[in-house]
Amino acid sequence: MRYKCTVAYDGSAYHGFQIQENNLSTIQAQIEQVLKIITKEDTRIYPAGRTDTGVHAYGQVFHFDTVIDMKEWNMKNAINSRLPRDIAIQKVEKVADSFHSRYDAKSKIYHYLIDLGPYDPLKQQYRYYYNHHLDIMLMREAASYLIGEHDFKSFTKNHQITNTVRNLFQLDILKEQNLITFRFHGDGFLHNMVRIIVGMLIEVGRKKIKPEEMEHILSALNRTKAPKIAPPNGLYLSEIRY
Amino acid sequence: MRYKCTVAYDGSAYHGFQIQENNLSTIQAQIEQVLKIITKEDTRIYPAGRTDTGVHAYGQVFHFDTVIDMKEWNMKNAINSRLPRDIAIQKVEKVADSFHSRYDAKSKIYHYLIDLGPYDPLKQQYRYYYNHHLDIMLMREAASYLIGEHDFKSFTKNHQITNTVRNLFQLDILKEQNLITFRFHGDGFLHNMVRIIVGMLIEVGRKKIKPEEMEHILSALNRTKAPKIAPPNGLYLSEIRY
Repeated sequence: MRYKCTVAYDGSAYHGFQIQENNLSTIQAQIEQVLKIITKEDTRIYPAGRTDTGVHAYGQVFHFDTVIDMKEWNMKNAINSRLPRDIAIQKVEKVADSFHSRYDAKSKIYHYLIDLGPYDPLKQQYRYYYNHHLDIMLMREAASYLIGEHDFKSFTKNHQITNTVRNLFQLDILKEQNLITFRFHGDGFLHNMVRIIVGMLIEVGRKKIKPEEMEHILSALNRTKAPKIAPPNGLYLSEIRY
Repeated sequence: MRYKCTVAYDGSAYHGFQIQENNLSTIQAQIEQVLKIITKEDTRIYPAGRTDTGVHAYGQVFHFDTVIDMKEWNMKNAINSRLPRDIAIQKVEKVADSFHSRYDAKSKIYHYLIDLGPYDPLKQQYRYYYNHHLDIMLMREAASYLIGEHDFKSFTKNHQITNTVRNLFQLDILKEQNLITFRFHGDGFLHNMVRIIVGMLIEVGRKKIKPEEMEHILSALNRTKAPKIAPPNGLYLSEIRY
């Protein structure tokens, strides 16, 4: 029996999603620990993607297999009642054994938040406070060079992956009062890709580089051309589409 | 030289404001540690009031004395650059040596947040999630019995204090979508008073007790008549007025 779960979490207290060998606290470790109690056996979960230390999620998805046949609602409650308060399963669905959370994902949506307003110590884990002016129009222009299918090799720190071509369907930049929201929608994202793009768009917004530079950075296929990276606490994995 | 400071903090990671003998992490301990570096001597701070474990503040006030004469803006930056990210000084003012953060406080404003909507693990440290219907009109009616000068002995767990008379100027209950905001304004508050009042107003809102019961609870002068207490994470010390 295969279960698909949608999960939200506050990444602040965790060393990322993926289980670590050194016993560090991770989202996966917390969930698998709970599933071991419920299923009475070691139960591995398979996420649609990993998130790094400090990164949050509203719509992370994972699946797992177990012989335990439980109503979806009951499974959800059984897990949530045992999870720490900063992780919460939003939805449990029984799916076909052929379903795979990662391979079947059609697209993903990430959000990144920058706050230009006064520093708020109660919100600092949930957005990137940046206290300089950013030119949104320039950032939007720079973002337009990234839309579509490109080799995003310049925008990842992981050089072990062979295929670094991804299709970025949309990159919207919204500004409401002091809050800038970046919304990324693509068929997939390389490691650190969203944070590196935001880091470079900030360089454009503060006029350190010109929007059209993005084209050269892309075609360089080299991370040294995109040396900036925005901090993890502004990043949210919002949705996985199937 | 006396400095008055206004400070905001996320109380989630701390064992309350007040310094503890057992070396537990508290807001006061963090700030005094920083002031020791800046002033090069043990420097005690005097807050307008304490907050408990998990309680937040936007407008807590404290004062301290030092021979160091620094511009207000520089003192603020000197402290903030050394504080953990979840504590931030909002304002530093040089004041007369006769100023006392606690004795001179004319009134205090607290907020309490209840969220009736779906549980959000990213906001759970900043509001009380309560997933039952609450009748706001009944709660407002109950609150009206508490306005004015009363002996609030029933609404505190601290029985060592002799004078338990306080003047509650205002208690507003606002509802916007799923969020209920209680705003307390009074000349002073007993230990746990806000949380116990909210706990009892919830009993009224869910129709376990009638609004007019508040009068009897008040006049009983006995905490056993007000046994409920709302959790600390929904509580904010918002403002101290002088």
